Amino acid sequence: MSGSFYYAHVESVRCGSDSVGMVDVSDKPEILREAVAVGLIRLRRETVRLIQEEKVIKGDPLHTAEVAGIMAAKKTSELIPHCHPLPLTSVNVDANLIGDSSVQVRSTVKTQARTGVEMEALTATVVGLLTIWDMVKQYEKDAEGQYPVTVIENIRVEKKVKEDETSERKH
Amino acid sequence: MSGSFYYAHVESVRCGSDSVGMVDVSDKPEILREAVAVGLIRLRRETVRLIQEEKVIKGDPLHTAEVAGIMAAKKTSELIPHCHPLPLTSVNVDANLIGDSSVQVRSTVKTQARTGVEMEALTATVVGLLTIWDMVKQYEKDAEGQYPVTVIENIRVEKKVKEDETSERKH
Amino acid sequence: MSGSFYYAHVESVRCGSDSVGMVDVSDKPEILREAVAVGLIRLRRETVRLIQEEKVIKGDPLHTAEVAGIMAAKKTSELIPHCHPLPLTSVNVDANLIGDSSVQVRSTVKTQARTGVEMEALTATVVGLLTIWDMVKQYEKDAEGQYPVTVIENIRVEKKVKEDETSERKH
Amino acid sequence: MSGSFYYAHVESVRCGSDSVGMVDVSDKPEILREAVAVGLIRLRRETVRLIQEEKVIKGDPLHTAEVAGIMAAKKTSELIPHCHPLPLTSVNVDANLIGDSSVQVRSTVKTQARTGVEMEALTATVVGLLTIWDMVKQYEKDAEGQYPVTVIENIRVEKKVKEDETSERKH
Amino acid sequence: MSGSFYYAHVESVRCGSDSVGMVDVSDKPEILREAVAVGLIRLRRETVRLIQEEKVIKGDPLHTAEVAGIMAAKKTSELIPHCHPLPLTSVNVDANLIGDSSVQVRSTVKTQARTGVEMEALTATVVGLLTIWDMVKQYEKDAEGQYPVTVIENIRVEKKVKEDETSERKH
Amino acid sequence: MSGSFYYAHVESVRCGSDSVGMVDVSDKPEILREAVAVGLIRLRRETVRLIQEEKVIKGDPLHTAEVAGIMAAKKTSELIPHCHPLPLTSVNVDANLIGDSSVQVRSTVKTQARTGVEMEALTATVVGLLTIWDMVKQYEKDAEGQYPVTVIENIRVEKKVKEDETSERKH
Repeated sequence: MSGSFYYAHVESVRCGSDSVGMVDVSDKPEILREAVAVGLIRLRRETVRLIQEEKVIKGDPLHTAEVAGIMAAKKTSELIPHCHPLPLTSVNVDANLIGDSSVQVRSTVKTQARTGVEMEALTATVVGLLTIWDMVKQYEKDAEGQYPVTVIENIRVEKKVKEDETSERKH
Repeated sequence: MSGSFYYAHVESVRCGSDSVGMVDVSDKPEILREAVAVGLIRLRRETVRLIQEEKVIKGDPLHTAEVAGIMAAKKTSELIPHCHPLPLTSVNVDANLIGDSSVQVRSTVKTQARTGVEMEALTATVVGLLTIWDMVKQYEKDAEGQYPVTVIENIRVEKKVKEDETSERKH
Repeated sequence: MSGSFYYAHVESVRCGSDSVGMVDVSDKPEILREAVAVGLIRLRRETVRLIQEEKVIKGDPLHTAEVAGIMAAKKTSELIPHCHPLPLTSVNVDANLIGDSSVQVRSTVKTQARTGVEMEALTATVVGLLTIWDMVKQYEKDAEGQYPVTVIENIRVEKKVKEDETSERKH
Repeated sequence: MSGSFYYAHVESVRCGSDSVGMVDVSDKPEILREAVAVGLIRLRRETVRLIQEEKVIKGDPLHTAEVAGIMAAKKTSELIPHCHPLPLTSVNVDANLIGDSSVQVRSTVKTQARTGVEMEALTATVVGLLTIWDMVKQYEKDAEGQYPVTVIENIRVEKKVKEDETSERKH
Repeated sequence: MSGSFYYAHVESVRCGSDSVGMVDVSDKPEILREAVAVGLIRLRRETVRLIQEEKVIKGDPLHTAEVAGIMAAKKTSELIPHCHPLPLTSVNVDANLIGDSSVQVRSTVKTQARTGVEMEALTATVVGLLTIWDMVKQYEKDAEGQYPVTVIENIRVEKKVKEDETSERKH
Repeated sequence: MSGSFYYAHVESVRCGSDSVGMVDVSDKPEILREAVAVGLIRLRRETVRLIQEEKVIKGDPLHTAEVAGIMAAKKTSELIPHCHPLPLTSVNVDANLIGDSSVQVRSTVKTQARTGVEMEALTATVVGLLTIWDMVKQYEKDAEGQYPVTVIENIRVEKKVKEDETSERKH
């Protein structure tokens, strides 16, 4: 094994950028953090009517989207390379019909951690919206199997809050 | 992008229940919590004898079940929608022959967290039991490929303990 | 790098069992396979009444269990060490109140594959049952935080079917 | 164990919908299927300039988004409850600057399977877009830590193709 | 929604490489493929003696490594960005003491698929070796908590085999 | 349900080792911990030249390895049975050409937790190295499809550090 570290002293010839990594949050305080994200999926009116009348054959798209969104929030750091794994203390996902041709998903995530949870709220929201799409696929496709109407839109972080850092001591 | 939030002011027409989410534990104290769960799988006597004599062709079902149970405890919040992700500090899984026709799995899980770990102990136990089943499948099936004897039973939380909340300060 | 394989010729001194592995199914035919598994969770009558009246605060336990069960079927080979990853073609999970103090979960799984899907049906069933437990935890605990009544029982493979292997040619 | 199935004959009292499950695709042919999905994230001009000049501190957002998108395509059936697990044969993700204030992600997914891959292409696209967001978070936040500009938009299935089913025989 | 695709006609200004993706294997035949990978971990003699005498406090490192290796093979396409998800038909992992200061892990993986399984065999091997390390950590650390001896070495693909493509018809 | 615990009083007949589990770290302090792991993959000179000239067809192996390594660090406790799930606060992976025939991967991981992160740093490193292998597979194989040159070597923990435990109070 002698010499096994010889290469540590060799000049690196990497062309391009430096090392890649998560932001170091080791020294940030563990405080209460919250984020709310929203987004929208536009559907055919006929599809929205089927949801309202509970006639979607695969089951209730709104409730299924809510469950999928909650579970997705917990997978955020698996999906997004630079996200820190966080001990989420609350995840709330709400899917609602909006007008006659849209479903809105709003997700609220909380944690007591060293970094914020907007990516978790966004992930819950987009997976909730994708789940709606999947649940009503058959009603949205045209004769050629294409989706002329369906579109996911307006995914935003509505609000990001963090507890006053000076108040940390109480935890 | 103007107008992108117009729908926030529209009346929601969701029929049925409110939003769905994990219980908010943000304000609960981080204390030591422990749970013990047990369960049983009934097998043919001949199968139990093969386990005892270390003749099961796929390997040692008891040890494999223990490893699978430990790994499953860490997947609890991925499997059960409303479970919080928790930093488990200890997972112990014990698979034992009981009498001449059963294997018992007992799992003990600890954490320093804001909510309890009974779901983690239960998950470790049921996945341990399913692993036993999988390891001895070939000895349990009858001529038609059915399982006339095999059954998983009596999955219970034996004990749930939490440190006195007033003692939290020492951590 | 010369000599890097010298150890291939050294006597292995492993005490105990041989190598461990999945059963080799490479030469088995890809045929239609189906399995049905059932199980039961016993709850307090008061809890069952709350489910029936849709008053469970965390949401609908039956629907949530169904969604969790479907998702768990797809995780079977991640949870159980010797299970083959299979391209499931159908997963159906049904959670129902039985009498005044139980919920039954029944899962049906299909595939076109080289091995059966009873472990997938069992996994969907037990995760469905664990999800029920988690959704009604607060109503099942006594004053000491213990679960005197709650128990998961009678997890069985109700039926296992495989297409006649001679009929494979049509696929 | 006698009597363990007594409840099979008891009337189910489930109020509401029937069982929930994936669509059964067991009898569909394994044919070549392809889908293309696109979406857009709007950013501050200053942020887009930083991406162009390779000055984003966390690394290259476009390449990172592409890798994250590929990996997310393979997680689709874990994220979306009713999606079938499919043996993807190709995943291609392309992140590009569009104009002076947007990044577009386009994902192409192929499989030889019994059902289509539009959900996989959509999942790759949205996770790619979320990854862009995460990589440039620090440049998008205003003094209050909010995101006044950042929005993900126009997520669509651009194209869905499947091989003529009659041509299946050649495979 | 009109105009939502305007950007499809805009010139892309991406500096650098093209899109990133998995190799397209859609048109390759589904044939039997097999790969064998090996690797070695060097340990203190005292540690190897403890393994031999079954005195390692955390349990049997060899068997635990074998189980972890099998499970890791199934996670290969989750870990390595460009790996295709494959329906593994067999995974075999064998951990053995070699001489008085090493453990060797050898993994054999098979599939009936459109691309080879050397990455799966390598992944099973390295995770098996990491598991050995983890199981004996406490015996390998010196007084400063460093690992002066422990090293993983010689990870190679020993053999890669594929069935004659012309023989495919029999499947 | 009476008698359901009768088996708790029956003598266990398990032959062999005791229960299996993670080390209990419940009472250890949450302190800053860091680990650095390195490893090397040897490649053909021609392959290294292709990497340097950015001509590898599948994309940039170094950057892809860095992203895969970061994501793998977060999966450590899923892969290695006895590893505790930890809230990583920083992961940094650096892939570099070394001389004319090797790539080195160095990973640095930090946490504020009850146990160290050397397994996380090792996991990031080996998955980074496997990703390099996968990205250049086609250039490393000989005419028989074997890998005569490619080998992963010298995987070591370069450094392990933990904050003075007495300093914990400031957190």
